[in-house]
Amino acid sequence: MDDDGFAGFAGATVAVVGLGLMGGSLGMALRQRRLVGRVVGVVRRPEVAAQAIRLGAADATTTDLAEGVRGAALVVLATPVRTILEQIPRLEPHLADGAIVTDLGSTKTAITQTMAALPGHVQPIGGHPMCGKEVAGLAAAEPSLFDGATWALTPLQRTRPATIERMRALVQAVGARPLMVEPDRHDRLVAAISHLPYLLAVSLTQVAEVVGQDDDAVWRLAASGFRDTSRLAASDVQMMLDILITNRRYVRLMLQSARARLADLDRLLDDETALRAVLEAAQAQRAGWRPGG
Amino acid sequence: MDDDGFAGFAGATVAVVGLGLMGGSLGMALRQRRLVGRVVGVVRRPEVAAQAIRLGAADATTTDLAEGVRGAALVVLATPVRTILEQIPRLEPHLADGAIVTDLGSTKTAITQTMAALPGHVQPIGGHPMCGKEVAGLAAAEPSLFDGATWALTPLQRTRPATIERMRALVQAVGARPLMVEPDRHDRLVAAISHLPYLLAVSLTQVAEVVGQDDDAVWRLAASGFRDTSRLAASDVQMMLDILITNRRYVRLMLQSARARLADLDRLLDDETALRAVLEAAQAQRAGWRPGG
Repeated sequence: MDDDGFAGFAGATVAVVGLGLMGGSLGMALRQRRLVGRVVGVVRRPEVAAQAIRLGAADATTTDLAEGVRGAALVVLATPVRTILEQIPRLEPHLADGAIVTDLGSTKTAITQTMAALPGHVQPIGGHPMCGKEVAGLAAAEPSLFDGATWALTPLQRTRPATIERMRALVQAVGARPLMVEPDRHDRLVAAISHLPYLLAVSLTQVAEVVGQDDDAVWRLAASGFRDTSRLAASDVQMMLDILITNRRYVRLMLQSARARLADLDRLLDDETALRAVLEAAQAQRAGWRPGG
Repeated sequence: MDDDGFAGFAGATVAVVGLGLMGGSLGMALRQRRLVGRVVGVVRRPEVAAQAIRLGAADATTTDLAEGVRGAALVVLATPVRTILEQIPRLEPHLADGAIVTDLGSTKTAITQTMAALPGHVQPIGGHPMCGKEVAGLAAAEPSLFDGATWALTPLQRTRPATIERMRALVQAVGARPLMVEPDRHDRLVAAISHLPYLLAVSLTQVAEVVGQDDDAVWRLAASGFRDTSRLAASDVQMMLDILITNRRYVRLMLQSARARLADLDRLLDDETALRAVLEAAQAQRAGWRPGG
């Protein structure tokens, strides 16, 4: 396959490996908008295969990775990060000439490093759509999931401009906004605005649980503030574990930064003037932010 | 006025002191559901007075506290906590015989202690509806704000059963679910599920701001996880300052508990088996919780 002068993936076969929330939503978006010739879903469990066809997430499914990616112009890995790391080398003998290999994983350094070892005839490029829900699985998938979302693309040194352009066009075609970013830079930024929020939500849930052990009225008093701040604690544990372990260095950095901030806030409870200034700065910052902004 | 055998506040005058989000919403709910004879709003600024009439939050308004509460069967203090503490003694000479004095403040120990000094002919009872938005002010008020919300009621030792019953009925009539709770117990519980989430949201906003100083792509990558976990940082600063200062002891306790949890999570980044167990416990806890549950 030759991607020069070939604007999109019209008529092409796209393999989506893993039909959970993200992969399933992508399959639906590609099919509903008729952006590709055919979506082949690679799944682990036969019951998900049947569900994928029923929900319109794929035209065909297989439980065999080699069979699924054969002849695909684009392979999208949509499994948890460490499963992606394990799948990349297994793709190698089965990839079509010129095939683009991308992924939807939440950390990018380990994945792009592993992609670098793919043979020269394929084109690797990392990807990460900044959307999701705390509910995992195909049942929660929806073709509009990517609408308005930022979709990070992390090209490798060898990724050709034409590959980047095709991926940029595909990302826009499913409704998202591509953002080119280096893998290391991506991982630092998402540690701050995605992985840290998860750990803060977990800590809040843990504190409420301890308080609830001797007074379960805490659960009746908990309202929208608790609901929103703790929401991410309900995220899929395997997905989050893979993220935390493959981005440990930056996660730890952000965690330490947050702990230092909380220690400061504790101290400022005795210094109202300084506390007010700090809370006003955070208020202005947060009130001025808009998603994707 | 005699409250025995008098089930509700039908035909009575209710004074709502402070027509912000909470007071304004209560005025609207009381009027729309025709639960009282007349709502008098006590406001600080003339422009809010005009807006209150226009939005249906009050039948009449005044900027004079004494005039506003005169003849009221029920006085509801709906200002920030330390303003409530300052207003309670000023009410005293103007309150009708048998008037009930309650409030919508977010901490209860300081307020009920101050209410205890009111003269014997009035009936004090603390209150705290567990609802709100991060947007303050009358413009955000809505009569359905209390629908399904838990509304903590904190009677004093001298509060009569008939007063408790009238307040319980009123709370139910505006759509909320009354929960009787001691002031100290209330303050401990809300420190965990309301004041701690606010400080976690502030710390997250601060970390993102620091990261954004050298890479403003952080704001484009921030999505629904950041949005929800940081939402409370946009809360009204004066309201939150009053809460933190009047509940400092429990806020500090919960803050220290959360910091210990985050230190644990940091350590567990090197112990995947233990980390998985902790994240699974939080996942189960959070996924099993429902607001008001």
